[in-house]
Amino acid sequence: MTELLPVAVLGARGRMGAEAVRAVEAAADLELVAALGSSDPLESLVSAGAAVVVDLTVPEATAGNVRFAVEHGMHAVVGTTGWTAERLADLESLLAGNPAAGVLIAPNFALGSVLATAFAATAARYFESVEIIELHHPDKIDSPSGTAARTAQLIAAARTAAGVPAAPDATRDQLDGARGARVDGVPVHSVRLRGLTAHQEVLLGSPGEQLTIRHDSYDRASFMPGVLLGIRSVAQHPGLTVGLDGYLDLRAGARP
Amino acid sequence: MTELLPVAVLGARGRMGAEAVRAVEAAADLELVAALGSSDPLESLVSAGAAVVVDLTVPEATAGNVRFAVEHGMHAVVGTTGWTAERLADLESLLAGNPAAGVLIAPNFALGSVLATAFAATAARYFESVEIIELHHPDKIDSPSGTAARTAQLIAAARTAAGVPAAPDATRDQLDGARGARVDGVPVHSVRLRGLTAHQEVLLGSPGEQLTIRHDSYDRASFMPGVLLGIRSVAQHPGLTVGLDGYLDLRAGARP
Amino acid sequence: MTELLPVAVLGARGRMGAEAVRAVEAAADLELVAALGSSDPLESLVSAGAAVVVDLTVPEATAGNVRFAVEHGMHAVVGTTGWTAERLADLESLLAGNPAAGVLIAPNFALGSVLATAFAATAARYFESVEIIELHHPDKIDSPSGTAARTAQLIAAARTAAGVPAAPDATRDQLDGARGARVDGVPVHSVRLRGLTAHQEVLLGSPGEQLTIRHDSYDRASFMPGVLLGIRSVAQHPGLTVGLDGYLDLRAGARP
Amino acid sequence: MTELLPVAVLGARGRMGAEAVRAVEAAADLELVAALGSSDPLESLVSAGAAVVVDLTVPEATAGNVRFAVEHGMHAVVGTTGWTAERLADLESLLAGNPAAGVLIAPNFALGSVLATAFAATAARYFESVEIIELHHPDKIDSPSGTAARTAQLIAAARTAAGVPAAPDATRDQLDGARGARVDGVPVHSVRLRGLTAHQEVLLGSPGEQLTIRHDSYDRASFMPGVLLGIRSVAQHPGLTVGLDGYLDLRAGARP
Repeated sequence: MTELLPVAVLGARGRMGAEAVRAVEAAADLELVAALGSSDPLESLVSAGAAVVVDLTVPEATAGNVRFAVEHGMHAVVGTTGWTAERLADLESLLAGNPAAGVLIAPNFALGSVLATAFAATAARYFESVEIIELHHPDKIDSPSGTAARTAQLIAAARTAAGVPAAPDATRDQLDGARGARVDGVPVHSVRLRGLTAHQEVLLGSPGEQLTIRHDSYDRASFMPGVLLGIRSVAQHPGLTVGLDGYLDLRAGARP
Repeated sequence: MTELLPVAVLGARGRMGAEAVRAVEAAADLELVAALGSSDPLESLVSAGAAVVVDLTVPEATAGNVRFAVEHGMHAVVGTTGWTAERLADLESLLAGNPAAGVLIAPNFALGSVLATAFAATAARYFESVEIIELHHPDKIDSPSGTAARTAQLIAAARTAAGVPAAPDATRDQLDGARGARVDGVPVHSVRLRGLTAHQEVLLGSPGEQLTIRHDSYDRASFMPGVLLGIRSVAQHPGLTVGLDGYLDLRAGARP
Repeated sequence: MTELLPVAVLGARGRMGAEAVRAVEAAADLELVAALGSSDPLESLVSAGAAVVVDLTVPEATAGNVRFAVEHGMHAVVGTTGWTAERLADLESLLAGNPAAGVLIAPNFALGSVLATAFAATAARYFESVEIIELHHPDKIDSPSGTAARTAQLIAAARTAAGVPAAPDATRDQLDGARGARVDGVPVHSVRLRGLTAHQEVLLGSPGEQLTIRHDSYDRASFMPGVLLGIRSVAQHPGLTVGLDGYLDLRAGARP
Repeated sequence: MTELLPVAVLGARGRMGAEAVRAVEAAADLELVAALGSSDPLESLVSAGAAVVVDLTVPEATAGNVRFAVEHGMHAVVGTTGWTAERLADLESLLAGNPAAGVLIAPNFALGSVLATAFAATAARYFESVEIIELHHPDKIDSPSGTAARTAQLIAAARTAAGVPAAPDATRDQLDGARGARVDGVPVHSVRLRGLTAHQEVLLGSPGEQLTIRHDSYDRASFMPGVLLGIRSVAQHPGLTVGLDGYLDLRAGARP
């Protein structure tokens, strides 16, 4: 009989954490050995025998949690924000002294969203034009969305690296805002519509053809397959990985 | 045997005019009796026996052409721009003295586009949120497109008339342009992409549901069914009609 | 001060009924005067002074409930299925003797869905080709969906009435099922995808242009605006109305 | 000054060939040294000094053309169909004896289409459900399209290799054809609509999220960027490459 992988969830009382607890419990190959809230001592991770720690806590706690995990021979899968360049550098040092430990820091666990962003950046090197439309519920405070801004940055970087010239645009006579916001030169349009959740479309165009990559996020359940993939894969990826795409095989479809 | 309807095309050497000539010639119920360029005398319309005159000329010529047609007992189908309020008032006076004559002035002959605009304005009264995305080739000089601006105006007017409150929008922190241009309060986003022709999407949202009305225009051929509909219907619509939607039965689908 | 409209909900313990109770309570112009379950006596509707009765019960109960309401001078808004031709005929007789009473029987209260179907049937008279794609979660047992089948029937009827010829189709060499199911001659394609709820797209095409009408239903909340519209309008529509579209002004957008 | 790459086009009088002639002439880094029709002798390729031969001829001629090119030290970029397993094996033998020669055989030169197919196969390993909708003009004889069938095969192969179970589908009560055609178990739906050219959408779904990859092909111009990419890259890819995706860097977007 296969041994179950012992998993601990930190931040287990939060919304994401509670979902992760359920997802781990429902997975046939995983065993939930600890589910800690903010006041529970980290030491119980050791007695519980956790091999992988899932951190879904708060920016103030995450760096300390990951340090504890690495120092005690555990791997860590992290969905918490707040990882500044300085914190990442500290973590790299720590991992240099613990070469077997794997840490995944993923700003986004939705597999579809991660794939969509990677595909968009890949494709953007081969098309004349590229623009982004992101659509969210009208209670959202910021526009464009963080995901859209990051997608635009990756697209711009990929085009610059490949020597792609700026997209053509003959606009001369325009109403303020019609052509969207520019993020590293890529137009981003933000739609806010009652009934929607979180959606993004990257449109790419060249003479005679168009490629559209769209991701629809309907609810938080969409993050769980990515969290489980992280838990199952982190031991095979020693060192620091930022972004779930580092665990995906993005060439799988290329050569049958 | 059914008699053919005798049709004349003015502006027959222009791109739209040439298409119209071909479309009339191909229609089994129509007979092309004249195809005039800018230097041809209007008198030949009379000798040719035209019943319907299609005007696809230039703003400087169109008002005179329509006057000639009406005064000689013909109906007119007009796709030329340049009809100011003053010109329209003059035409109304002329038609008051020629009650049998029908004139259709249509800024847009694409049936799908006309229907899309009418549907959008109808639906906008029943939804919390509405935004417009219009997408064109990157050689377009103005943004938003004239069709998008007109659609936004009709939507805004329909919502005001029905007492619909402003769409919700919690945006507080934004990059300039992200939320599009405002036309009578309706956000309009303009995408410019190589490979595209002319496309428009109206997005409507309410709690739990979304309605999307999209029109794609791929080439000039799309105007001809509307031109033919105008030719065949103008005699049954005495007086002035502005907009092809005046000839469409928009309730057809409502009650089977 | 405006008087509130007294409303009763039948089937108040069901999922739709519970939503309706909440929606009526939240509406500033309505007053919930009764919320009955299956074992509660209908007589309490009279003592509660209900003016409009919302029936969200079961096929076995709905006809009796509506009869009671009409006979006691109330209007009825009905979302329950099971209205056979015979039952409808009985109801028509009953209403003939109670000319002031209004009854709305609506198989679908999602405004967006009702509008989408009406628009599709209207537009189908003006296009060469029309096909339907409906997309649902993979736990759905029947395909195509009832809404898609009904949309296809209305489209087919509208095209027949307008003398539109069959859509062109040169298919000669095909894999079984590729061209979808035929409902009254209209191809319907059923997609089943994890993550989706209920979505429908009607695609219409003519030379050089395409019109797409899409409706996305994300959750049950989408039915409430339609239920409220029914409650507020039923008194102004004496007699029997089948379909919420009978209460919508579908020409609103046509003539600005 | 940079030296121009000398290019010859075979099948230069055909539609694709004529487009290729124009595209090579318009490219600043390429020089068209020969444009041959079916009756022109291949020997003129040698005297013209061609380094890369583009074959856009007919199935009967292509194998001989490529053999001639390889034996005379030229690279070949091939868009002609008719490459059976036997012909491919012969070509592999020939190339084994000419290790410097590069041959690209590409059934599809539309970069967007090639990328879309590769992305779909990659993503299909990470989603529960996947279906394909392909949309074409109504004069198309076969359904599903060859591209859709090939995409389904690649998707099915990727899922099998990754151990992904069959997509969930509770359908029990269905109209014939509603659920599409099955290609290696993947449902494919074929829409035929006047006004369209060639379009394909791959829909992928998991709990709470959906990924859609859509490609629109509007005209033959869309093949030329792929042909030019082949011409410029073939010398760096000795041996046989089948599929333009072999020349694309599909991981470009993965790691910024």
